[in-house]
Amino acid sequence: MKFFLMSIFASLCISSFANYSQDYTQYVNPFIGVENGGNVFPGVSLPNALVKLGPDCGERVWNAGWDPNGNILGFSHVHVSGTGGGCKYGNILVVPEPGKLNIANYGAKRNQEKSEVGLYSVNLGENKDVSVKLSSTEHVGLHEYTFNNHNRGHILFDLGSFLQFNLYKPESQKFVGAEVRINSPLSIEGYTRIRGGWNMGDVYTVYFSAEFDRKPIDIGTWKGNYIHHGNLSEYDSGEKVGAYFTFNTKKNKSVRLKVGISFVSVGKARENLKELNGFSIQKCKELAQIKWNKILSTIQVQGHKEDKIKFYSSLYRAYLQPTNKTNENCKWKSSSPYYDDFYAIWDTFRATNPLYTLLTPQLEIDIINSLLDIYEYDGYMPDARSGDSNGRVQAGSNADILIADALIKGLKGINYEKALKAMIKNAEVPPGDDERKEGRGGLQDYNSKGYISTNFERAGSRTLEYAFNDYCIALVAKYLGIQDIYRIYMSRSNNWKNLWNCNWQENEFRGFIAPRNPDGSWSNNFSAFSSGSWADFIYESNSWEMSMFVPHDIAGLIEHCGGKKLFERRLDYIFKNGLWNVSNEPGFMLPHLYNYIRKPYKAAEIIRKTLDEKFGIGKDGLPGNDDSGSMAAWYIFNAIGLYPNTAQDYYLITSPIFSDISIMLPNNAVFKIKSINNTKSNIYIQFVKFNGKPLENIYISHNDIINGGTLEFIMGDSISQWGSKSLFPCSNF
Amino acid sequence: MKFFLMSIFASLCISSFANYSQDYTQYVNPFIGVENGGNVFPGVSLPNALVKLGPDCGERVWNAGWDPNGNILGFSHVHVSGTGGGCKYGNILVVPEPGKLNIANYGAKRNQEKSEVGLYSVNLGENKDVSVKLSSTEHVGLHEYTFNNHNRGHILFDLGSFLQFNLYKPESQKFVGAEVRINSPLSIEGYTRIRGGWNMGDVYTVYFSAEFDRKPIDIGTWKGNYIHHGNLSEYDSGEKVGAYFTFNTKKNKSVRLKVGISFVSVGKARENLKELNGFSIQKCKELAQIKWNKILSTIQVQGHKEDKIKFYSSLYRAYLQPTNKTNENCKWKSSSPYYDDFYAIWDTFRATNPLYTLLTPQLEIDIINSLLDIYEYDGYMPDARSGDSNGRVQAGSNADILIADALIKGLKGINYEKALKAMIKNAEVPPGDDERKEGRGGLQDYNSKGYISTNFERAGSRTLEYAFNDYCIALVAKYLGIQDIYRIYMSRSNNWKNLWNCNWQENEFRGFIAPRNPDGSWSNNFSAFSSGSWADFIYESNSWEMSMFVPHDIAGLIEHCGGKKLFERRLDYIFKNGLWNVSNEPGFMLPHLYNYIRKPYKAAEIIRKTLDEKFGIGKDGLPGNDDSGSMAAWYIFNAIGLYPNTAQDYYLITSPIFSDISIMLPNNAVFKIKSINNTKSNIYIQFVKFNGKPLENIYISHNDIINGGTLEFIMGDSISQWGSKSLFPCSNF
Repeated sequence: MKFFLMSIFASLCISSFANYSQDYTQYVNPFIGVENGGNVFPGVSLPNALVKLGPDCGERVWNAGWDPNGNILGFSHVHVSGTGGGCKYGNILVVPEPGKLNIANYGAKRNQEKSEVGLYSVNLGENKDVSVKLSSTEHVGLHEYTFNNHNRGHILFDLGSFLQFNLYKPESQKFVGAEVRINSPLSIEGYTRIRGGWNMGDVYTVYFSAEFDRKPIDIGTWKGNYIHHGNLSEYDSGEKVGAYFTFNTKKNKSVRLKVGISFVSVGKARENLKELNGFSIQKCKELAQIKWNKILSTIQVQGHKEDKIKFYSSLYRAYLQPTNKTNENCKWKSSSPYYDDFYAIWDTFRATNPLYTLLTPQLEIDIINSLLDIYEYDGYMPDARSGDSNGRVQAGSNADILIADALIKGLKGINYEKALKAMIKNAEVPPGDDERKEGRGGLQDYNSKGYISTNFERAGSRTLEYAFNDYCIALVAKYLGIQDIYRIYMSRSNNWKNLWNCNWQENEFRGFIAPRNPDGSWSNNFSAFSSGSWADFIYESNSWEMSMFVPHDIAGLIEHCGGKKLFERRLDYIFKNGLWNVSNEPGFMLPHLYNYIRKPYKAAEIIRKTLDEKFGIGKDGLPGNDDSGSMAAWYIFNAIGLYPNTAQDYYLITSPIFSDISIMLPNNAVFKIKSINNTKSNIYIQFVKFNGKPLENIYISHNDIINGGTLEFIMGDSISQWGSKSLFPCSNF
Repeated sequence: MKFFLMSIFASLCISSFANYSQDYTQYVNPFIGVENGGNVFPGVSLPNALVKLGPDCGERVWNAGWDPNGNILGFSHVHVSGTGGGCKYGNILVVPEPGKLNIANYGAKRNQEKSEVGLYSVNLGENKDVSVKLSSTEHVGLHEYTFNNHNRGHILFDLGSFLQFNLYKPESQKFVGAEVRINSPLSIEGYTRIRGGWNMGDVYTVYFSAEFDRKPIDIGTWKGNYIHHGNLSEYDSGEKVGAYFTFNTKKNKSVRLKVGISFVSVGKARENLKELNGFSIQKCKELAQIKWNKILSTIQVQGHKEDKIKFYSSLYRAYLQPTNKTNENCKWKSSSPYYDDFYAIWDTFRATNPLYTLLTPQLEIDIINSLLDIYEYDGYMPDARSGDSNGRVQAGSNADILIADALIKGLKGINYEKALKAMIKNAEVPPGDDERKEGRGGLQDYNSKGYISTNFERAGSRTLEYAFNDYCIALVAKYLGIQDIYRIYMSRSNNWKNLWNCNWQENEFRGFIAPRNPDGSWSNNFSAFSSGSWADFIYESNSWEMSMFVPHDIAGLIEHCGGKKLFERRLDYIFKNGLWNVSNEPGFMLPHLYNYIRKPYKAAEIIRKTLDEKFGIGKDGLPGNDDSGSMAAWYIFNAIGLYPNTAQDYYLITSPIFSDISIMLPNNAVFKIKSINNTKSNIYIQFVKFNGKPLENIYISHNDIINGGTLEFIMGDSISQWGSKSLFPCSNF
């Protein structure tokens, strides 16, 4: 047992480490995926915490603030992780500045940048020579700056700073206002107000209240380019403002401060400061590690160290978002939990949310109740949401899927009647002006023609996802005993077939999802190979992948593809010809489709290769945007040999990478997955036992897992017949 | 010249009283229309000012806070005037409380309640015995409380108080949060955060920063029901909070305080406080009177005192709203002016906005630029807006009309190209989910069928107003030389005919606006006599009135009614049978339609009788909701013998009630209207001269007025032939 478990904090958390005796945070590298478009946030954060304190780099910074090339400007308190598109947040920037006071161009090169759970550290380069340590609690950022070689050190609060993105202007954040007030030589408060960003959201305000551990020798403020020495406050006149505290660092070289953050008010930020006693980076880090170990220890694995680093870093990233803003909602008052930074559910419904449901079901319940609260007060459940504003919808109304998944997996404490209303609103009420904000765009077409025509953008992705969403509505209606709703939406769930152009042929494969004109004729302005974005027929995918996205009717899909043989050959063709891209979520379940034709060994080949080759332990260790832990959750499920088909109550069995896996369930049950002879080459499942009895099925139910038990694999280096006699996967529904 | 013009403030305002030598504020009675549903705000306010400081009464208060029966709870800083539906605002309540501290049930009876321009005063009844005086600047409320008979007086800040309306729950305001902080024995700051109200708006926050003129002997705060003596702050935890200051009032019986208000921040509220030097109620009142005289003196009339009271009180009310929130916009930063509390343009486009265009055109320009800014940042120009949120649309997208009116009357400094885009968005992009929020509801019907079917609420009012709105788009397009847009919308402006059921007959009158089914057949579920509301075919009118609402094609309307004779008999029938109601805006121009058939004497009879009988100088002096000065503006235009048809560049000539009227135009020109032999019985125009030459036309152009000149009437007690040879009124367009 490591030292930190014996620290003074341990006694507060006795229940939180009852299930583990290891420090899993040692396997977490927060820098995995910061480069190569992963856009992972490498600073400090507690699980799903509001404060994400880390460096903001350069002028044209990346989405999480960090980038490999730019100078470090300073350290700001609110970030998202793993996102694409325009930047969001980067608020309340604290800057250490030695020597002469400089309120602009204060960037510095970096040395020895390091990050572990609960501690980020860096030395700012030769022009500054400041050592930095950062830690955090849920709502407080803790900073320690050591001015190694200067007699004077300034701490700047730049409230005009935020992440900016200039490639696509409509997605950039815009400054609205800021305010600052020095209350005492030890205390400063204020806010930054911003609008826009990737989701083109309404205005949001980040408030702060900060305390220093020692008194300055000078203070002042600035507005625009004008420094006001000795001044104590700058009111919000729509201009950028800031404040500085100057310290004598001749003998005592370190300055420590803690910054409480709130989305409600300065007073709430001040209250939030009480969360952290004292200024000890070490203690704060230990507390962070205790809290993270509670999450990380829910899956305990044995295996290669590099795999464990990939695995636990993934588990860490999967819990960076959404942000728990309960009691931090400035828009309405309710008794519901409040979560923000769904970024986006389009990404996370596939693996991240099912991961929560399995490991931390109360979190998933809280998230869904928050979605229902957003529906009640803001009009629609979000597909994406950030800075308290819905937007943008990638394609379907995919919050629907989370509700169906919660219901079929038995999550309690959710008002499913209200949820059904929220889902039906998505399905029936067009969102109007901004169809990227919320609800279902092109709904008039979908509800009158049964498909979305070429009159609307993303018609292919939308039609297919709406069909799946409609299945989810049918599922919830059926559970609630509302037969007419069930029948209507079950029928609509077939709408994917209305865009299935059975005359479109590529090689031997006939039948693709293809664009259709308003009059019902097919458009020829189309390539099955081209991947699209917002304005295109298919979003972040191509028709090879997207034509296979019918997760609620895979039997029907196989039939449309011409039967099992052609389906298998089509999958083979896709994987052989590089038409599958794990970095875009629509293809997440494509390898697992081999399970439905009882060829799990083909899935194993694709998945194990992908886990090995596309995921690494370096800064470029992710194949693309982590997308709020979506890549992370894909990695985790596949690494343990289980993969969810969301809104079905089973997991597909795949080839685990670890020889010994224990899922520590919240009901104190343990589900063990053992694999004998598992090596990098022994990737093929030869034989499976569940609780001692042979298991021929290539899937296992959610209930079988959460009740605890043991799944045993015997692995080998050659293809086996295991799974060939499996039933077709289906839910107990 | 009265004393106040010689006060120390006068030198600051030398240009503002150059045009008048009288104090017109003496004729203003802020209590006219507070009862009888007028819902006028009787407290203190500068023109279009953010701070409206007045009493909030009882539990079930009226829309402006005041009601005749309830006890006075205290005095809050933000109100609207003349509105119907659920309450809005009533924020930052200050309560004087003698004797024992009491944080609830602190209402008191009142004596000697008085209000004049810049000063509201009242004595709180026997249980309190506190004399109250209130005055204000644009952003500061000034309070003086005299504790006549107690040795201790508390001043409470109840930040959990706001106007509540319980008759229709969806329109009620809901508490979100509040915060308070005592900074020093003389200073307190905080906010109240509320959502909802009549427009069902998003959350808004009213910040304050207050200063006392003397030190208290005790201070404290409360949260919920718990008083915290000596405590200095309460953070926002979603509970109601407040604070108290206790004073020794044994010798010095008065306490004065000033409260800066902001919609941006506490710091901005603190900055706004600088607007007012010292604590002198008298000086503050004098400043208010100077500022109001600048508005009131734009029309200088001679006549009976009672008429002058009605007239100048109307002019005062016409400038209470919308609220100038320039530099008080918390949602975006732009260089545009920012106005809020359009409540609603549906009411004010008819007379209030044309009044601004005539008397204070820069205000109308600023308002329109603000509407365009709202379009740019919030998506649509509002029909109504309050608390920084659009909503609710009564029927048409009537901001369109303001733009056409501004253009045809030559207002400069407006980007009409951008305005045309904003108008076309209204006409082409359905608002989606909440069709009462903004844009045009039922637009799919209107744009496909040319009318709104019985599938949608308010189909009659919407169709007729959309047709008028489309005319306004055509007008702007033509001015900008965009012929194809002009032709499309000119054609759409005929859409009112699509709801004209020429087979519907009442008495001898055939042809009424009537509900039509989606398949084109007429609905029989209809009465021309019944007046409706939100869910009905016609909004706040009946089909007798609403069938006559085609202000852009009155020639076509006359033809549809069967020609001039039948048109005249129909108008006669409406007025004789009480089918016209001046208190609902759709009928505002109904009497003036007699001008279009060259029978101005019939208009005179209706209008003069209405001005005399429906408008008074008492608390019940208005026929209904003043509707942001709509009743006021209707009174003003008719009282001076001119009435606008908005989006036309002429005024219809009616029978003025004053013998001598001077309109002091902003270009320093003067337009005089003299009427000889004008008495209560001599209401008929016998003869008209314009600039010395006989005028036969029953209308006069906007240009003829703003260039200055003299209109002379000879009045008599019998019907004359004047106007019978008039041209049909038309714009120079």
